[in-house]
Amino acid sequence: MGLMKAQEGIVVKKFGGTSVGSIERIEAVAERILQDTKAGQLPVVVASAMSGETNRLVRLAADIDPFYRGLAYDMLLASGEQVSIALLAMALEKRGLKAIPLLAYQVGIQTDSIFSKARIQEVKGQRLLELVKQGIIPVVAGFQGVTIDDRITTLGRGGSDTTAVALAASLGCEACEIYTDVPAVYTADPRLVPKAQEIPVLSFEEMMEMASLGSKVLHFRCVELAVKFGVKIHVRSTFERREGTWVVPEGERMEAPVVSSVTHDAQTVVFKIFPVPFGPGFLAQLFERLAEKGVVVDIITQSQNEEGQRLAFSVNEEDRPLAEQVLRQQVEDHSQIVVMDQMAKISTVGVGMRNHPGVASRFFKVLHDLEVPVHLVTTSEIKISAVIDKSNLEVAARALHQAFSLEES
Amino acid sequence: MGLMKAQEGIVVKKFGGTSVGSIERIEAVAERILQDTKAGQLPVVVASAMSGETNRLVRLAADIDPFYRGLAYDMLLASGEQVSIALLAMALEKRGLKAIPLLAYQVGIQTDSIFSKARIQEVKGQRLLELVKQGIIPVVAGFQGVTIDDRITTLGRGGSDTTAVALAASLGCEACEIYTDVPAVYTADPRLVPKAQEIPVLSFEEMMEMASLGSKVLHFRCVELAVKFGVKIHVRSTFERREGTWVVPEGERMEAPVVSSVTHDAQTVVFKIFPVPFGPGFLAQLFERLAEKGVVVDIITQSQNEEGQRLAFSVNEEDRPLAEQVLRQQVEDHSQIVVMDQMAKISTVGVGMRNHPGVASRFFKVLHDLEVPVHLVTTSEIKISAVIDKSNLEVAARALHQAFSLEES
Repeated sequence: MGLMKAQEGIVVKKFGGTSVGSIERIEAVAERILQDTKAGQLPVVVASAMSGETNRLVRLAADIDPFYRGLAYDMLLASGEQVSIALLAMALEKRGLKAIPLLAYQVGIQTDSIFSKARIQEVKGQRLLELVKQGIIPVVAGFQGVTIDDRITTLGRGGSDTTAVALAASLGCEACEIYTDVPAVYTADPRLVPKAQEIPVLSFEEMMEMASLGSKVLHFRCVELAVKFGVKIHVRSTFERREGTWVVPEGERMEAPVVSSVTHDAQTVVFKIFPVPFGPGFLAQLFERLAEKGVVVDIITQSQNEEGQRLAFSVNEEDRPLAEQVLRQQVEDHSQIVVMDQMAKISTVGVGMRNHPGVASRFFKVLHDLEVPVHLVTTSEIKISAVIDKSNLEVAARALHQAFSLEES
Repeated sequence: MGLMKAQEGIVVKKFGGTSVGSIERIEAVAERILQDTKAGQLPVVVASAMSGETNRLVRLAADIDPFYRGLAYDMLLASGEQVSIALLAMALEKRGLKAIPLLAYQVGIQTDSIFSKARIQEVKGQRLLELVKQGIIPVVAGFQGVTIDDRITTLGRGGSDTTAVALAASLGCEACEIYTDVPAVYTADPRLVPKAQEIPVLSFEEMMEMASLGSKVLHFRCVELAVKFGVKIHVRSTFERREGTWVVPEGERMEAPVVSSVTHDAQTVVFKIFPVPFGPGFLAQLFERLAEKGVVVDIITQSQNEEGQRLAFSVNEEDRPLAEQVLRQQVEDHSQIVVMDQMAKISTVGVGMRNHPGVASRFFKVLHDLEVPVHLVTTSEIKISAVIDKSNLEVAARALHQAFSLEES
């Protein structure tokens, strides 16, 4: 990552799509950065595309070819951030600040060449540091990278968070600010569970699980990178000045509750296939093909009896058409494929679960008492997840939130 | 320009904003390129932003600061072409062709650092040639460049034409195709003069004059570059397969009419200032300030009598706010500034004028007979221009078109 010695006062600030979603909001963000500058900070700004813009671009591409992925697709999507950083830089300059918008290739945010889901390999922080030393605010395009042979890549949805943490790491910063349209990370989605509480401190591990389980607040790779480089993340509101949620190494938190949050993902699709050919060859090939297409497979279960081998797996709704296409090509004619949509995944997450073996039984008892059928299950040391019908999501989330005493936290 | 030996079969094809203005049109352009490929051509494609997109971006910038020009502004505008080339490359790949979208920095279209009106200094055609040799169609972003220190620039309105000619020159091509929404260059704007005729062949010089006098068909610098590198330009319709207008060196045309076209610019504003300080110091400083702001001053007249010195000059309507701002700063309080808007410039152009000294008198006689007042005048060897009231434009254009026998051409 080309780590540098920290320059006193540098703060990486990432503003999401809703924070820069209109000219008025861009002006408000610029005003906030001006105040921070007056307070002595040396900001390095990262911005996402204006909200709605990435979807507009995705629709344009889909009108030509809904299955197209690759270099042209990433170049298309990367244009969204180019617009927002240019506008934000103008708004800063209007306030008498010096600002320069920078694209990934101009900063040197180098990634691998897996289009649409590229991983950052190196950030050359030197150019940023030089600008900061000259009193200039770098305004960096989030979400995008560049391969070693000069091709534009994108980091996947929410990739701007990852950009921010990578910049903070390369600049030797202790922390990174992620500004968003909610004031903090909550114990559950407040739209689903009205009694959800703000979480003041979370561990990296919990945040990683939450991100991978459907919490929209932070991108998974962003937290992964934060862990790797020990960069604390401060999730806070663009529209209020108070502190939000700090995401920190586990040792830095005073006490951890057994369960920190109830997290859900309402965009789940389950595929069931029966019979599938015996032996690992078929499965290996199927999941290889899915991976090649960029489909992320979540929970996989496999079982067999005298009738044959059964397979079930879940993917995000977004990947459904691609997954179905691959499946039809790989599965033989006599196999039956059942697609279950209108599914949701609900999970409880908490590092405290390590020392409390009763969490799983309580989790399933809550669902059983509500007569909520469970379709797929997966667990780890610090989380339990179940795929249930989307129609049961709200009642299950509220009951779990209450059962694990999150209302009082 | 890094000229290379011509590769047999390479044809640079530039598609303007209306040609790629919707997904349907992008598909139609891709279809046309497919046919050309089947006929043995090796296309190198240049595209403008989708029509309306650049204006949308300009409005966003103006909402923040209507006077802002510079690095951030050019980066903002350059995003438009990024979208259209990515979509066009997808549409080509959908048809089984191999295509790669390329931004200016990826091609190596190097410019000076005059933002918004940058000039191309060098094109590194090597990368394009390598792609073509691999059977790949490069789809290059028009209108944009990159400075030697990696900053994105734009070439001014219509700059994609310039990009196309510069690529053709660097690839050693004899000609370059400019596809547009009209089938050819006309003797006058057909919306203004219904009897306007298509012009099969024009000389570089005439086209340059027409471009600088307000004809929207080709960008001035594009023709200038075509002259410099001897690249013929073929202006033709995106929607029809027949030939349009060839723009060629003067010697290649069989016979030239006295006047080739009546050209107009309906976006003219005249400033009149009285009195202005005597001596050249004031004028030098005023026009220097205007140039710094990127305002192109067109016709200038100056006169003096015992009352003092008078100055009048014209600019494009687009530059009016900037010009007015500079003028107010430079002119002393007791000077009077009159802004005349609703003006138009009307011109006749033709290389044949060199040998026909009666053209000017006929030009002014036509305007006189119509009782059209003339506010400013300028002439060159091959053109006569007059600034008149916009309300007189139509009648003047039709009368001049008839007087110079263009209806029969």
